Amino acid sequence: MTHTIAEIADALGLSFQGDGGLHITSVAEPAQAQADQLALAMRPDFAEGLRDGQAQAAMMWDGADWQGYGLRAVITSQRPRFAMAGLSAMMDLGQGYVAGIHPSAVIDPSAVLGAEVSVGPLAVIGARAEIGAGSVIGPQAQIGTAARIGAGAVIHAGVRIGARVTIGARFIAQPGAVVGADGFSFVTPEPSGVEKARASLGAEGTDDAQSWARIHSLGGVTIGDDVELGANSCIDRGTVRDTRVGNGCKFDNLVQIGHNVVIGNDCLICAQVGVAGSTVIGNNVVLGGQSGVSDNLRIGDRAILGGASVVLSNVPEGRVMLGYPAVKMETHVESYKGLRRLPRLFRDVADLKKAVSKLAGND
Amino acid sequence: MTHTIAEIADALGLSFQGDGGLHITSVAEPAQAQADQLALAMRPDFAEGLRDGQAQAAMMWDGADWQGYGLRAVITSQRPRFAMAGLSAMMDLGQGYVAGIHPSAVIDPSAVLGAEVSVGPLAVIGARAEIGAGSVIGPQAQIGTAARIGAGAVIHAGVRIGARVTIGARFIAQPGAVVGADGFSFVTPEPSGVEKARASLGAEGTDDAQSWARIHSLGGVTIGDDVELGANSCIDRGTVRDTRVGNGCKFDNLVQIGHNVVIGNDCLICAQVGVAGSTVIGNNVVLGGQSGVSDNLRIGDRAILGGASVVLSNVPEGRVMLGYPAVKMETHVESYKGLRRLPRLFRDVADLKKAVSKLAGND
Amino acid sequence: MTHTIAEIADALGLSFQGDGGLHITSVAEPAQAQADQLALAMRPDFAEGLRDGQAQAAMMWDGADWQGYGLRAVITSQRPRFAMAGLSAMMDLGQGYVAGIHPSAVIDPSAVLGAEVSVGPLAVIGARAEIGAGSVIGPQAQIGTAARIGAGAVIHAGVRIGARVTIGARFIAQPGAVVGADGFSFVTPEPSGVEKARASLGAEGTDDAQSWARIHSLGGVTIGDDVELGANSCIDRGTVRDTRVGNGCKFDNLVQIGHNVVIGNDCLICAQVGVAGSTVIGNNVVLGGQSGVSDNLRIGDRAILGGASVVLSNVPEGRVMLGYPAVKMETHVESYKGLRRLPRLFRDVADLKKAVSKLAGND
Repeated sequence: MTHTIAEIADALGLSFQGDGGLHITSVAEPAQAQADQLALAMRPDFAEGLRDGQAQAAMMWDGADWQGYGLRAVITSQRPRFAMAGLSAMMDLGQGYVAGIHPSAVIDPSAVLGAEVSVGPLAVIGARAEIGAGSVIGPQAQIGTAARIGAGAVIHAGVRIGARVTIGARFIAQPGAVVGADGFSFVTPEPSGVEKARASLGAEGTDDAQSWARIHSLGGVTIGDDVELGANSCIDRGTVRDTRVGNGCKFDNLVQIGHNVVIGNDCLICAQVGVAGSTVIGNNVVLGGQSGVSDNLRIGDRAILGGASVVLSNVPEGRVMLGYPAVKMETHVESYKGLRRLPRLFRDVADLKKAVSKLAGND
Repeated sequence: MTHTIAEIADALGLSFQGDGGLHITSVAEPAQAQADQLALAMRPDFAEGLRDGQAQAAMMWDGADWQGYGLRAVITSQRPRFAMAGLSAMMDLGQGYVAGIHPSAVIDPSAVLGAEVSVGPLAVIGARAEIGAGSVIGPQAQIGTAARIGAGAVIHAGVRIGARVTIGARFIAQPGAVVGADGFSFVTPEPSGVEKARASLGAEGTDDAQSWARIHSLGGVTIGDDVELGANSCIDRGTVRDTRVGNGCKFDNLVQIGHNVVIGNDCLICAQVGVAGSTVIGNNVVLGGQSGVSDNLRIGDRAILGGASVVLSNVPEGRVMLGYPAVKMETHVESYKGLRRLPRLFRDVADLKKAVSKLAGND
Repeated sequence: MTHTIAEIADALGLSFQGDGGLHITSVAEPAQAQADQLALAMRPDFAEGLRDGQAQAAMMWDGADWQGYGLRAVITSQRPRFAMAGLSAMMDLGQGYVAGIHPSAVIDPSAVLGAEVSVGPLAVIGARAEIGAGSVIGPQAQIGTAARIGAGAVIHAGVRIGARVTIGARFIAQPGAVVGADGFSFVTPEPSGVEKARASLGAEGTDDAQSWARIHSLGGVTIGDDVELGANSCIDRGTVRDTRVGNGCKFDNLVQIGHNVVIGNDCLICAQVGVAGSTVIGNNVVLGGQSGVSDNLRIGDRAILGGASVVLSNVPEGRVMLGYPAVKMETHVESYKGLRRLPRLFRDVADLKKAVSKLAGND
């Protein structure tokens, strides 16, 4: 698969300078680029690597002095980072899943597969499941009873989609992702220690020794269009109604979304994030890696949670939060600086005590 | 599947009022309920939704004014939250796994399956494995050599049970859960940097550059009755003896239980919790989401660990812990308040220094 | 499988005393040991258990008074903990995977399998994949297109190795591990709220509402020799070049390694650790359980990160770090002590204010 510089620029809606007929086989970082590769010199500091590599062409920022780096051609962009989206889509070799229905797949006769759906080896598709046109079901993936997946999905190896889950168009699920496991909902015959500790803000005396009864998850999961779910991530089904994820949300690996959670559109949920049951998250929210959100909270639109922050109360729109418990980022930075200066403060107060004692004639 | 109000109340051991012959098809939240659904109006604030929905019957708290909401029937409970356990079990449509042994499953001839065991498509059951009566082995699940699983288990899609693991009755494992992976135990020829840092409480000088030798996990995992394990959660095998989990423990998704850990009965382990090797946890302990427990510790009965707390030392019985490192909840709250008030304290001390300096005639 | 004491000592390069012909079937903790088991009495406190068990032989430290415990034979070691590596390898019963190619496995005709490779039931091996001699591919595992795995690998059940991933010799992957899922890389047409918040250190005003465009992962993953990857752990592919892991690295369960990360040799990465994109980690680094490292950082050789610590800036060689944000361990301990003493400090300052006010004649 080769492309000329002119073809690439045209496909991305960008302009090029120099030899538009130069053939490109793939992309590379500037210092490692071979003569037939397009070097990704998106920023001046990356561009320096061009001097160590063999690239004859590069993608660069508008106005870059490409000739000064000895290149024969350049594709330029006002925002080269964004241009990478289209460029990388063109160059992606993918997983190499074979088209068609593999004979080893186990597909219930009542399942409905759209046009040009591929099903990999040893995949399982349950009764009354519906798979939209052009979707790819990877090796050993499993689609549950009456689950519905929209057109153009890519369900990678070993993904599990539970019964009655509904997913929109162009869904991508990385290996091992699980949508529609049962929610984690248990109840004791009498109020439990946790219920008491929450009511009393941590008072001791949780002397009960009860067993947990299971509340079954009667709801499903509803996911919008253009959602991506990372490897081994989990979105649990709801208790009575569905857990819901809006359009355009992207989830990294090992994320946990609890039962009944509602997430808006275009959220970015980084790796190892946990969102506990029944929390409602707005649109365009970003949850940094390893961050957590407690149950039954509301996170406003465009809020940003820094890495490893843990939210224990509602977050207003547009707020940038950090820390455990998470607070407004400026507040966290101020507290943190104070903490670092504490040893000096202790010394100052000790000195003051001596001085005051002396002034008072006590020594 | 429909039930009358009288049948539901009878099955749950609760009383009803109004039209016991009313037919119910499923349950719903009050505001979304259709005419043939039982509205779950467990608390006064939920009940308000009844005015927006079409429900003719609801589950409510004892003494609720059901007629005032225009209902034709009500089922009441002193603790409606607990009643949800039985009610949700009645209404659960499940995953729709097909009964019987699917012909695509690979079952070693020496495996012993009890009466009415179902094995889903493409599941693997190893040599000398034993599966108790009435258990369901889901699609693409794997049961290892000589593993023993009690009666009434539900092993969902893609679960892995390792060799020689022993599990009691009524075990539920969500998709992708792994029981009996090898423990994480490595050793260097000479004491490692970690051993030195622990001995010296963090002194620098960890100048060794050794490779890690693997300590194989010779133990297995023993799990009691009525345990549930969440999606993609892991319980590792022990080094010499088994890792052990008592009866009635419930684990949420993405939980990590290290080698040699011992967990008592009826513990609730929330999502993304990690318990490091050889720690001993008592009965009725609750570990909040994303919390962690370091290795070789003891957590007393009925202790509660707040979300994202990290325990680095032993915890006595009944203690409610919070923070990183986790401390008694009141202590944490006090420290936290102090941290928030630190900027003011710095200003106070600066003012005091000026005042004392002035009093001492230094200015 | 039985061994004599003399055979075991010889295999481990250790010496024994007493009856070298005594037959051993397996190992046990001292208090639980039967007469045919070797008791692991590695330290004086463990050895006390010998009095409660039936062992006739033990592994002990150099100079231990084995006859005083009534034993008939002893194997001694200067570092018994290290001797466990070899001893446990001898005694490991393994998963019992059957040798040979199971007929239910789906292997592309263009895949190249070395001598004595075993492939378990329902495994999938893609086109042009290469598996080194003596490797074991477990049940339901999947090896992607053109992936290369060195000799002597043990790929457990349900592991997923993505297309074009390259792995060295003696790789061990626990169930559900995923190597080569797509990296988590998304970009907005205009600078996003996260880009702005990072630039301004958290200033509010992230008012954009853009959708995320996917940057495809064109790189793969390259892993060295003697690497072990835990259950349900994930190592993502790189964006342009490969994500890289050196020789001898050991990863526990549920670990997340982001795209473009570079890890040196002999690192120990404990359970639930997350390393964000493009971070570079040196040799012999230890990352404690649940710890995290932000993106684009450098962690020096032999650094140690305590459990649940979160690194937000570069870490020099040999540094022991703790806390969130992680700081030098001593600094953390000092801050932490200060935090615990804060309530007293507030009282001291209040007292000082009164005393100074009195001295100034203000009361």
